[in-house]
Amino acid sequence: METLTAAILPQTIRKRPANSHKGTYGRVVLIGGNDNFGGAIIMASAAAIYSGAGLVTTVTAQSNQTSLHDRVPEAMFADITDTNLMASLITAADTVVIGPGLGTTDHSRTVLITAFKNICPDQRVVIDGSAITLIATDQVTLPKAHLIFTPHQMEWQRLSGIAIADQTPDRNRQIVDRLPGIVVLKSHHTEIYTATGSYRNPLGTPAQATGGMGDTLAGMVGGFVAQFADESQAVLAAVYTHSAIAEELATTQYVVLPHQIITEIPRFMKTHSEK
Amino acid sequence: METLTAAILPQTIRKRPANSHKGTYGRVVLIGGNDNFGGAIIMASAAAIYSGAGLVTTVTAQSNQTSLHDRVPEAMFADITDTNLMASLITAADTVVIGPGLGTTDHSRTVLITAFKNICPDQRVVIDGSAITLIATDQVTLPKAHLIFTPHQMEWQRLSGIAIADQTPDRNRQIVDRLPGIVVLKSHHTEIYTATGSYRNPLGTPAQATGGMGDTLAGMVGGFVAQFADESQAVLAAVYTHSAIAEELATTQYVVLPHQIITEIPRFMKTHSEK
Amino acid sequence: METLTAAILPQTIRKRPANSHKGTYGRVVLIGGNDNFGGAIIMASAAAIYSGAGLVTTVTAQSNQTSLHDRVPEAMFADITDTNLMASLITAADTVVIGPGLGTTDHSRTVLITAFKNICPDQRVVIDGSAITLIATDQVTLPKAHLIFTPHQMEWQRLSGIAIADQTPDRNRQIVDRLPGIVVLKSHHTEIYTATGSYRNPLGTPAQATGGMGDTLAGMVGGFVAQFADESQAVLAAVYTHSAIAEELATTQYVVLPHQIITEIPRFMKTHSEK
Amino acid sequence: METLTAAILPQTIRKRPANSHKGTYGRVVLIGGNDNFGGAIIMASAAAIYSGAGLVTTVTAQSNQTSLHDRVPEAMFADITDTNLMASLITAADTVVIGPGLGTTDHSRTVLITAFKNICPDQRVVIDGSAITLIATDQVTLPKAHLIFTPHQMEWQRLSGIAIADQTPDRNRQIVDRLPGIVVLKSHHTEIYTATGSYRNPLGTPAQATGGMGDTLAGMVGGFVAQFADESQAVLAAVYTHSAIAEELATTQYVVLPHQIITEIPRFMKTHSEK
Repeated sequence: METLTAAILPQTIRKRPANSHKGTYGRVVLIGGNDNFGGAIIMASAAAIYSGAGLVTTVTAQSNQTSLHDRVPEAMFADITDTNLMASLITAADTVVIGPGLGTTDHSRTVLITAFKNICPDQRVVIDGSAITLIATDQVTLPKAHLIFTPHQMEWQRLSGIAIADQTPDRNRQIVDRLPGIVVLKSHHTEIYTATGSYRNPLGTPAQATGGMGDTLAGMVGGFVAQFADESQAVLAAVYTHSAIAEELATTQYVVLPHQIITEIPRFMKTHSEK
Repeated sequence: METLTAAILPQTIRKRPANSHKGTYGRVVLIGGNDNFGGAIIMASAAAIYSGAGLVTTVTAQSNQTSLHDRVPEAMFADITDTNLMASLITAADTVVIGPGLGTTDHSRTVLITAFKNICPDQRVVIDGSAITLIATDQVTLPKAHLIFTPHQMEWQRLSGIAIADQTPDRNRQIVDRLPGIVVLKSHHTEIYTATGSYRNPLGTPAQATGGMGDTLAGMVGGFVAQFADESQAVLAAVYTHSAIAEELATTQYVVLPHQIITEIPRFMKTHSEK
Repeated sequence: METLTAAILPQTIRKRPANSHKGTYGRVVLIGGNDNFGGAIIMASAAAIYSGAGLVTTVTAQSNQTSLHDRVPEAMFADITDTNLMASLITAADTVVIGPGLGTTDHSRTVLITAFKNICPDQRVVIDGSAITLIATDQVTLPKAHLIFTPHQMEWQRLSGIAIADQTPDRNRQIVDRLPGIVVLKSHHTEIYTATGSYRNPLGTPAQATGGMGDTLAGMVGGFVAQFADESQAVLAAVYTHSAIAEELATTQYVVLPHQIITEIPRFMKTHSEK
Repeated sequence: METLTAAILPQTIRKRPANSHKGTYGRVVLIGGNDNFGGAIIMASAAAIYSGAGLVTTVTAQSNQTSLHDRVPEAMFADITDTNLMASLITAADTVVIGPGLGTTDHSRTVLITAFKNICPDQRVVIDGSAITLIATDQVTLPKAHLIFTPHQMEWQRLSGIAIADQTPDRNRQIVDRLPGIVVLKSHHTEIYTATGSYRNPLGTPAQATGGMGDTLAGMVGGFVAQFADESQAVLAAVYTHSAIAEELATTQYVVLPHQIITEIPRFMKTHSEK
């Protein structure tokens, strides 16, 4: 496994062309957040926006409309029960993030299947949280697209069939090679498996061990792949950025909260962008 | 075309007379924000308030009432389905901003037509976003008033009939001369066409290329024309202020979010106001 | 008229006794905020809390419950249509603030009358905004209590019958002497008429000329009279504090927003409290 | 009585093991917040999260869903009327906090009884506010578990039968010895009675005498006992931390608000954690 370094950042976070507009940086649709887990999709949406995604729409339960606008007025809202609207939003998107706070009910499953049916082959799709669980347990058919899975260890166990204790790089690689996409295996030191390489994130602090961290990372991955051409590099840079900000904050905080990481993204990216 | 400079700022942002009250700085009514695009009218409303408008009322979908008050308790709320209330608010207003997040449904069109019917000739009316699209595609009759259009390039194509690639200053000028108002053509370097001049904003950064920037500018234009006597100068100063704040923030941020620009307005205006 | 000075502050803002609890600093009930003017009662409630009131309950439209808790989780909520609950809250209160965003409908009038019926003689009652208009136009009977009126000039015209242009200290004094309470006449330089004196606030900046300033002052007056024994001094100190903070902020801001004043109150009070 | 010192902090707030995850730091369920007192459970939930609890779910009135997510998107939500969901959440929890803003209606009582029925013996349960009152007045049966009561003096009077004026350490100790749990008696200088010791908190400032302080402390106690092995030490450290932050803030503020204490927790814990 290759160990990630900060060198990935300026290689990925490029100087933006002067003559560009919001369309240049991607249309991202995030799908998730049921009546219980609204915070998950709100944090993911905020993370995508603070990472620099051009246009963000959040497809979530109606009961999350107000809290979404309160925390991120920059995000547009769509009701997750409006199937036609979700389909048209996905069709117009460059990047889709699905899963944070989606839940695992029948309705969650229907949303996932409907979303996948509308995915186009050239889209980048981040599959997180409950969406991974549903795929593992309900045999939902994966769409043909640029897929990026972001499981934590238990979700990876469900998806890969490898028990947590047995999740070695070699075993993981074997399963990843059969999956049509990149895998970000979230843990103490997150591992990333792309088509051509395996990477280990040397950063990460136990101050991050709190609910919502994974949702935030999924949104950042969505924001990075929406705007940076090299998909694998974008994923690596998002993972590195997430942990590096957490480590910075952990020098003065016993615990680091997801929303605190989010607000630091624009400053961190500037510091580490191409000069 | 004349290139804008910071000289426009102290000429426009005048020292406030000691003996003044909120009525002195204008009653602004902002109309927009359907169930999907609530953030747009919230950001426009906040921008008007932080720019110094005296009294601000936001006419929007009922589902945006709470998020409006959360983010800007200084704004008053009116339900966009209450036609009589909207009419009386417009009648009492000095400045109307219509369009951010309004949408292009039949209901949006009805709101636009009703609003325009209640406009008085001495009012200043900022026409933004979906309102421009509706005017272009649905032949909505424009009211007699001091109109200011704030299209981005695609909206300008719809309104002017000039394809984006052909939007040169000369072509734009020809159409503007037939339109009863000022045109702020938002782009990488925004152009402003008034009755007597054409101006180019030299500022602007790709860090601004994110959703909500245009809504924020529309609200700032509304806030500036509500309180400064010279309408053209007010528009020019609002455009310049918007980009200048973005450039300042972009020195330390890879992406600049609309709400971050909004909170900087009072400080920036003080620094660049008449001494 | 006596001109207020900063000397009023340490005389009023006393060192708190070590052995005290939230009950020591007063139970304040604020009543107002209809479906359109929720921000007004939210700002008044926040102002009371940041001024140091011990326990604050806000009686307002149900549609303001969420935005109240978002902005000031320290405030408790009561539905303004629940007459019995409002009555019992008033009975248990030390101080009542009524009027910010209350509106002038029949329902507003009923709320005002019901509230006044439950007032006890030893309570302090701040009467603001629409409540003043209703008293002036609907001949609502005033309760026997320690009343403090906080009209702006137009509301004072309605209540006193003196046209704005004729509102001289002598004319005002004549009417105040017939009113059972203190009058805070809000203007460029606010005047305060107590039973024994007339005071002029030398502070105040046109940067404050924006919606919500009066609501914020009403809440501060409520917070001050709830915790400081000398009622007149408490009113004078609240008025002075409000303007002094605004002037401080106006050194770096072109416009000062009410919520910005509110967050500065605890620091300002500490700086100017009894040593 | 032993007087607490800052030495309790590094003994309790241990360096986190590198190889840990959110499950390591406890699943906390907080139950409370009716339609009137939503702020109480929001502040308690935020306090638990900022204290470092791994996963937090808030069981509260549906009308508090949005304000909960607005202020703490990291918290998950459950409707307090969904008895089955609450039961399953409690079963999966390490720590339960019940009482902040729960109210004392029949429904509050039913919630309390249902919650207690689902408590397991190895769980830590913080009993606060209305829950204490209900236990005292309605003879609700206590569950077998690690109980921590956090009454203020009036609630302690109800629970212990000792009038406030008679609440001496000896009298308190007698009653505590009959109660199956730790008692945190909140007052000017909070006292803590564990199975083996009695402690007095020397810190505390009258600037803290404002609504919501107790709810915040209850949430902090929940967050501390969820992640630190020694239950008594965790309680002592939470109490000390709460007051120490308040004293720090009170050096520059006349009044200290609960939400201000909450945001300081991560920094304070870092400063005083094991090196």
